[in-house]
Amino acid sequence: MAFTPQRGVTPVPAAGVKTYDLEADVVVVGYGCAGASAALSASTAGSDVLLLERAGGGGGASAMAGGLIYLGGGTALQKACGFEDSPEEMYKFLVAATGPDPDETKIATYCEGSVEHFDWLVECGVPFKESFYDGLLAEPPGDDGLMYSGGEDAYPWNEIARPAPRAHVPAVEGKVLYEKAGGWQLMRSLTAAVANSPVRVETDIRVDRLITESDGTISGVVSRRYGETLHIRARSGVILAGGGFVFNDEMLGLHAPKLVGRLKVGTDGDDGQCIQMAQSLGAAVRHMDAAEVAYCSQSPMLVRSIVTNVQGQRYVNEDGYFGRVGQTTLFSQGGRSFLVFDEEVFESVPEDQRPGLQPTWVCATVAELEESMGVPDGALQSTVEVYNRFAEKGEDPLFHKRAQYLKPLCSPYAAIDFREAILGVFTIGGLRTDIDGRVLNLEGDAIPGLFAVGRSSSGIPNWGYLSGASLGDGTFFGRRAGEAVAKAG
Amino acid sequence: MAFTPQRGVTPVPAAGVKTYDLEADVVVVGYGCAGASAALSASTAGSDVLLLERAGGGGGASAMAGGLIYLGGGTALQKACGFEDSPEEMYKFLVAATGPDPDETKIATYCEGSVEHFDWLVECGVPFKESFYDGLLAEPPGDDGLMYSGGEDAYPWNEIARPAPRAHVPAVEGKVLYEKAGGWQLMRSLTAAVANSPVRVETDIRVDRLITESDGTISGVVSRRYGETLHIRARSGVILAGGGFVFNDEMLGLHAPKLVGRLKVGTDGDDGQCIQMAQSLGAAVRHMDAAEVAYCSQSPMLVRSIVTNVQGQRYVNEDGYFGRVGQTTLFSQGGRSFLVFDEEVFESVPEDQRPGLQPTWVCATVAELEESMGVPDGALQSTVEVYNRFAEKGEDPLFHKRAQYLKPLCSPYAAIDFREAILGVFTIGGLRTDIDGRVLNLEGDAIPGLFAVGRSSSGIPNWGYLSGASLGDGTFFGRRAGEAVAKAG
Repeated sequence: MAFTPQRGVTPVPAAGVKTYDLEADVVVVGYGCAGASAALSASTAGSDVLLLERAGGGGGASAMAGGLIYLGGGTALQKACGFEDSPEEMYKFLVAATGPDPDETKIATYCEGSVEHFDWLVECGVPFKESFYDGLLAEPPGDDGLMYSGGEDAYPWNEIARPAPRAHVPAVEGKVLYEKAGGWQLMRSLTAAVANSPVRVETDIRVDRLITESDGTISGVVSRRYGETLHIRARSGVILAGGGFVFNDEMLGLHAPKLVGRLKVGTDGDDGQCIQMAQSLGAAVRHMDAAEVAYCSQSPMLVRSIVTNVQGQRYVNEDGYFGRVGQTTLFSQGGRSFLVFDEEVFESVPEDQRPGLQPTWVCATVAELEESMGVPDGALQSTVEVYNRFAEKGEDPLFHKRAQYLKPLCSPYAAIDFREAILGVFTIGGLRTDIDGRVLNLEGDAIPGLFAVGRSSSGIPNWGYLSGASLGDGTFFGRRAGEAVAKAG
Repeated sequence: MAFTPQRGVTPVPAAGVKTYDLEADVVVVGYGCAGASAALSASTAGSDVLLLERAGGGGGASAMAGGLIYLGGGTALQKACGFEDSPEEMYKFLVAATGPDPDETKIATYCEGSVEHFDWLVECGVPFKESFYDGLLAEPPGDDGLMYSGGEDAYPWNEIARPAPRAHVPAVEGKVLYEKAGGWQLMRSLTAAVANSPVRVETDIRVDRLITESDGTISGVVSRRYGETLHIRARSGVILAGGGFVFNDEMLGLHAPKLVGRLKVGTDGDDGQCIQMAQSLGAAVRHMDAAEVAYCSQSPMLVRSIVTNVQGQRYVNEDGYFGRVGQTTLFSQGGRSFLVFDEEVFESVPEDQRPGLQPTWVCATVAELEESMGVPDGALQSTVEVYNRFAEKGEDPLFHKRAQYLKPLCSPYAAIDFREAILGVFTIGGLRTDIDGRVLNLEGDAIPGLFAVGRSSSGIPNWGYLSGASLGDGTFFGRRAGEAVAKAG
């Protein structure tokens, strides 16, 4: 459990601030992908930009990410890899897959601007290799630049929109799977771009409160560095880009109690400070209960196995997005599941593609397996009987797994006990913003001078999630907010 | 869909208010059971109280309720009916059944004060008959005063705390089941008590905004009546008791999108205005995604049937609280289910205890039934096979339905199609308050002069729900807030 220090969040009236230690047109709070993109675009638009980061340097949770960036509609990379896509198909998919209550206005803006945004990332120096990864890991093991990432080609989305791979993955020299990956490269490129820009960066600085003018306009922030309080003035506006709140257990309790005690994915900067600073002056929030939930197996083994609950029943198509399997497992099954497969499935997956996945039980019959698992007599047997009988015909009428992954399970059978397994989670709810990142109050009006982007805001990842949506949404709407605040100033 | 007019919610500075049209020590917003109890206790404690209601008279959602009031720990009524209970067992049950993230402090206070609170209701003139209702409807068909209401005697709660019936139901002369019920009687008694007190009541008045002093203290409300704006001063404090937000579709979208389009239970006063007025000045909210979800069958038929999802699988014990069946159905199964039973079950339930429940399909075999229902071949058959085989032995190892309700289903079989069935919902999330109803800001500090009770606040019904928790929590914490504000003045 991370240590979350008690910090103030309520606003400070400008009238009480005597001197300012730092000053800029635009103050950006948080140096992940969203803050970097906001700072770059505000600077390009002519603003004097100050970028604040609590850690010793830029990166944040973005630098720890696999690096998938969800873009489409016919990007240069999609075309180079031979895939057709359109903003319309991308829109249909995102509206369906990010519901309930998808943000249709943001999605439309995102899909229309996606091709251009990819080009912008390339201009910023983010490298992409023109090759498609056809595997089933959560990120490419090598430097392939394009992959599926949200179950676009699986049920039910494959019946709603024409599937296309939309995860654009930066190429990493010396890649280490799940360790030094595309997110590291994305932030390496963006921090280099920032370094080559007029943007000023201040690190090791924690922002605690917003400064408000008597008319409600936000005109700065109160922060701390090494015990010293710094007042920082923002002449045009403040952009909050300080991440989500998965490292704030009190906020999880208030808004997303089912996430408490799960594996936190992010950095301890994801403490909700940016969200709370704005909430405390009346900003609206949206979908604070929503979360990405990574299932405990992201291996090709998953699609060829069956996932059951503690009653031995299947409850999801195993070939969908692993985050959808994870969400369903956490929110519908209390986080408990079994992965059931057979020797043939196990042997068919190369060892390096099933890290840590060892059978808890191996048995000659399903009846023995079920008994070992503590599943009531006959419950798993009937699940496997129905699954096998239809798999034989290449069908899965219960959950619509695709034919290519259907094969009857046969002896010896095995299962992994995922009842106590770790599900990695992060929050996706946050401040309610318009398409230019303006933070809205409860009447739907913009709070003057205040913007939020990345996971401090609610955006494309809305309730339903897909890998790549955070880096995609963060950089895309970060740019827009930077432009908007520069224009406003 | 209810028409929700656009209304302002942001606060108004006191400095801008020239004259006040009305004035009192304590201003209570909303005349349901929580507002009535708050007004009565503040008045008893010596305050000059003004009770505001947007409708033409008191009642609100409380008056439409079945009237169950969740109390225990050994009330006079429990004793008279021969049931043993203790605050400790009640506490254990509530902590388990209202989680995740139950409000343990509020629950402890509630359990300790519950016996005395029942006596207070009796003193207020609320009539209770000393008889126990042993049936399985959602409220007693007659005037019985005590019943089970939260699945205390069903799995898993029966393994966690000693069960006791805790729903105390006012006796109604000329009762009409689900129409003129205990809630009507509760409000009839409380409005009579208010009429006999010095509390002043103003009706047809809508409260839009809070008035704030320069130091942040709440000192009144801005309201409207027949097009006229009224400024109302509260010398000691304002108590928000204006209900939940199920009639505000925009708020549902932001916080509880799965409730959109469901049957709204409450009055159109449940528009979230009280919650938003406080949120807009930085009040914290809690569990805004939480909801009571009434399952589509609250008949004794439910416990003797099996409930399946569209895959033909069971997913819940049918003998638990019908609101738990409803929550599971909505949140885990997209609101879609089948009720599967046989002729014997159907005939065993008197017609007036299965209103509107007619089989959609009746078939000689489960195979035929399953085909009619569109469930994949063998899926329902295996569900029934496993259920029947264990029911024969009085066991349900999958979901732990009690033995008394277990009987193998036999031909002719029947099912009701509840895939498009109506699930009645209301919100239970709201403002974060302490045990005296003080509204807390995001730093956990009380906002001076501001209180909230009933479903404008988050309380005993927390995430898990149980019938009687709203009227119980509303009257109990309403009283406490009334006392606290009177003392503060």
